[in-house]
Amino acid sequence: MNRIITIGREFGSGGREFGRRLAEELHIEYYDREIITEVAKRTKLTEEYIHMVTEQRPHALFPITVGRSINLMADQSFYMVQSVYAEQSRILRELAEKSDCVVVGRCADYILRDWEPFRVFVYAEMESRIRRCQERSTAEEKLSDKDMRRSIQDVDRSRAKYYSFYTGQKWGDKEYYDLCINTTNRDIKELAAWFARLMR
Amino acid sequence: MNRIITIGREFGSGGREFGRRLAEELHIEYYDREIITEVAKRTKLTEEYIHMVTEQRPHALFPITVGRSINLMADQSFYMVQSVYAEQSRILRELAEKSDCVVVGRCADYILRDWEPFRVFVYAEMESRIRRCQERSTAEEKLSDKDMRRSIQDVDRSRAKYYSFYTGQKWGDKEYYDLCINTTNRDIKELAAWFARLMR
Repeated sequence: MNRIITIGREFGSGGREFGRRLAEELHIEYYDREIITEVAKRTKLTEEYIHMVTEQRPHALFPITVGRSINLMADQSFYMVQSVYAEQSRILRELAEKSDCVVVGRCADYILRDWEPFRVFVYAEMESRIRRCQERSTAEEKLSDKDMRRSIQDVDRSRAKYYSFYTGQKWGDKEYYDLCINTTNRDIKELAAWFARLMR
Repeated sequence: MNRIITIGREFGSGGREFGRRLAEELHIEYYDREIITEVAKRTKLTEEYIHMVTEQRPHALFPITVGRSINLMADQSFYMVQSVYAEQSRILRELAEKSDCVVVGRCADYILRDWEPFRVFVYAEMESRIRRCQERSTAEEKLSDKDMRRSIQDVDRSRAKYYSFYTGQKWGDKEYYDLCINTTNRDIKELAAWFARLMR
């Protein structure tokens, strides 16, 4: 059975960079947005749409009238969201079957549970996450610290809802991970090199 | 500045054994119950008493009348509990000043914050903790799984209250730790050897 490392991460914690560098250090495959591209190819939906629906729980995406009246639009939308999740799960299983890999996000810890993945969750204090986001924003993306905080909280809230909808587990609750890593004030490159030593 | 590793742990998670083995692997000092012995020596209180009062938040130890009527017994008891904490803090700082070490429990992560300790929290699923406790109980200590679960929950509740009373932080909340390690179904000896590689 291939060795799978899954990375859940708070927005701005450097979790994606951590996962990418960890895979580099270990010379194994790394999957993150590649999965969206593949889902888009197979479902004929746009990458933007897939990105949007894989960060929100399904019933936030269609009107409250669903279930109370016949609403074809909403039915269609719900069906699409479900097929994105199904396609994403299929792709993840194919990749896990192929070789060792690191997968960031996408409920991979849950979807690939039969592979008994090593489940990592990456987090950091809010101030550190704001700083990290500010450093990587372009001039056009610049926000005040207050707006950045709100935006981080929004993304986390969406991720938590999406994760809990599909897995029935609580996103970020240490019970569902093998290791939780605090990246506050730490250099992600060093941290990844450090953890790669554990995983070799 | 000496390198300090502090270990918080859920009861039955194997956290104490993890700390002891980690210290062995790293050839550094290990402190746990040794601290109680030293506090006892300095305060002239019994080790049993100190063990009891360092696992419960102070106001659970004296009657509700305190503060409403003059109660010398309770005053005395409160004073003793506070001096045990003060003495324990003093000892921890002396030890941290002396050499690198691993300290298990005792709010060491908070008391030694000026040393910027590496703060580890060790936890496990309840079923795994019950199994671990059953394995290490003697014939006289044997409990049913149901009673063992209750007893584990009681110890954790006391630790949480003690920790939060003195630190103002939430015990076991990953925010207050650098690394959280899930020991469910894992061999503690292997896990400690593995983590020692990180810490070297």
